[in-house]
Amino acid sequence: MEEITVFCPATIANVSCGFDVLGLALDSVGDEMTVRKTTEKGIRITKILGQDLPLETENNVAGVAGLALLAQSDYEGGFEIEIDKRIKPGSGIGSSAASSTGAVWAMNELLGKPFSNLELVKFAMQGEKLASDVAHADNVAPAIYGGFTLVRSYEPLDIVPIPTPPELYATVIHPQIEIKTSDSRKILKTTISMQQGIQQWGNLGGLVAGLFQNDYDLIGRSLHDHIVEPIRSILIPAFDDIKANAIKAGALGSGISGSGPSIFALSKGGEIAQKVAESMKKTYQNIGVDFDIHVSKVNSQGVKKIA
Amino acid sequence: MEEITVFCPATIANVSCGFDVLGLALDSVGDEMTVRKTTEKGIRITKILGQDLPLETENNVAGVAGLALLAQSDYEGGFEIEIDKRIKPGSGIGSSAASSTGAVWAMNELLGKPFSNLELVKFAMQGEKLASDVAHADNVAPAIYGGFTLVRSYEPLDIVPIPTPPELYATVIHPQIEIKTSDSRKILKTTISMQQGIQQWGNLGGLVAGLFQNDYDLIGRSLHDHIVEPIRSILIPAFDDIKANAIKAGALGSGISGSGPSIFALSKGGEIAQKVAESMKKTYQNIGVDFDIHVSKVNSQGVKKIA
Repeated sequence: MEEITVFCPATIANVSCGFDVLGLALDSVGDEMTVRKTTEKGIRITKILGQDLPLETENNVAGVAGLALLAQSDYEGGFEIEIDKRIKPGSGIGSSAASSTGAVWAMNELLGKPFSNLELVKFAMQGEKLASDVAHADNVAPAIYGGFTLVRSYEPLDIVPIPTPPELYATVIHPQIEIKTSDSRKILKTTISMQQGIQQWGNLGGLVAGLFQNDYDLIGRSLHDHIVEPIRSILIPAFDDIKANAIKAGALGSGISGSGPSIFALSKGGEIAQKVAESMKKTYQNIGVDFDIHVSKVNSQGVKKIA
Repeated sequence: MEEITVFCPATIANVSCGFDVLGLALDSVGDEMTVRKTTEKGIRITKILGQDLPLETENNVAGVAGLALLAQSDYEGGFEIEIDKRIKPGSGIGSSAASSTGAVWAMNELLGKPFSNLELVKFAMQGEKLASDVAHADNVAPAIYGGFTLVRSYEPLDIVPIPTPPELYATVIHPQIEIKTSDSRKILKTTISMQQGIQQWGNLGGLVAGLFQNDYDLIGRSLHDHIVEPIRSILIPAFDDIKANAIKAGALGSGISGSGPSIFALSKGGEIAQKVAESMKKTYQNIGVDFDIHVSKVNSQGVKKIA
């Protein structure tokens, strides 16, 4: 195989009580990338559709992730990358992670899969480092593994795939304002109370148990974040209304996607997820906030070949 | 049924990363209690074998828990309780929880099971409040449900039973010193760093996932507590040596049982759990610390009728 085109899913990180550890992949939102082998060494980004992003390899997250892979490979050629960028950068649904992931996953396929999923996560994390100063794994891990993933630890990196209940849908609304991940990290406190911590790991345990048992009620009861959401939500227009209306419309729970500004809700079934979308739209239309909105099954496959 | 004798298991709370939320029940260590109906109203503790504990109903954890049940019942009689106290108070393996649990579970059986497990937990928590000033549920929940239980939340009380891998064994060593739960709580910090929190809920998620999948390695990788153990272990003789030697002997992980001074280790299989017991014994024998030691399968049934 000399060329491959892949779908790289958008992802929701910081799933409520899963701050910095839990992420999930979406099914119907993502970038498309074509990667081809070249005899010339190194990596060239030849085309980016849809967004104005740097073509220089060292300044592009896909380029940097690809270089990290090449540095560990005995392959003597190089790669060309074309990116059809459908996820808006800065939206909080893993735009940089999708590009980083797509690049390294596609290269690994073209090279005959010399690298494990865990190694691909490590390469893609270098793209995340370029994008936000922090080599976090909570978007790239679900983009590669699909479904829900838990980053149990960074030292050593330990990714735990968590099963995805079959009827779980996500609704994500993206208000058209930009929050940089790096800014959004700066406003966080560096200490929390022991009581907040206990609540958070109690809920995280409940959420993981709910996902294993397809217990949608337990998932809903566990989708709380008393630590980060109260702080970061201040930066997001009408966050409290969007969330309250989503839950009124039937969502199991709702929270900030990644570091925002997107807001996600999880629902049992596509019909409720659509109702949740309607309620979110109406909330922003009433106050004149522009937005994109997505309804998607939780994707259990992750990045995949489409041509 | 006018009379019942029950086995009330010892329990390990604060299972490493599960501080204040995760507990488990033991199979071969516990109290025995006989409870019988009386025409006289109220509760009378008629006999306590094995330990010098108060017979006055209001000063006895089984009495207080039983009174909480009676207050919600339309039963017009009362109960007599005999306790064969085999778990030493202050050992850190749920001595008070066993008595509280045994009393309310036995009464519920004698009354034809009018109360749910969740209600029994609430009654038994009143005994815990008498014992340690805090109505915690992380010992009484596994004593009632068996296996591992997660206390996801207190307001409202939400208990999540977690499956128990079939080959999971616990080794528990109890050095003969006393630490009061209330003292042991006082030395804890009231704040933690965000990074410690993230590590802890990452590990708790990994531990729950490991228990669901019978993934003993993942259970072992997740059994860490960077928050409470470093502080409380100072009160326990040779904690670091006991733990290090247990892991050398093959344990998946090791930590403080409850608020101490008992130290637990979890192992895959009874044979390894015995080797771990030998290593623990030797460690205390070498420095002249007296101890009790228990090796037990993790009990998946909880409190049960034995006569």
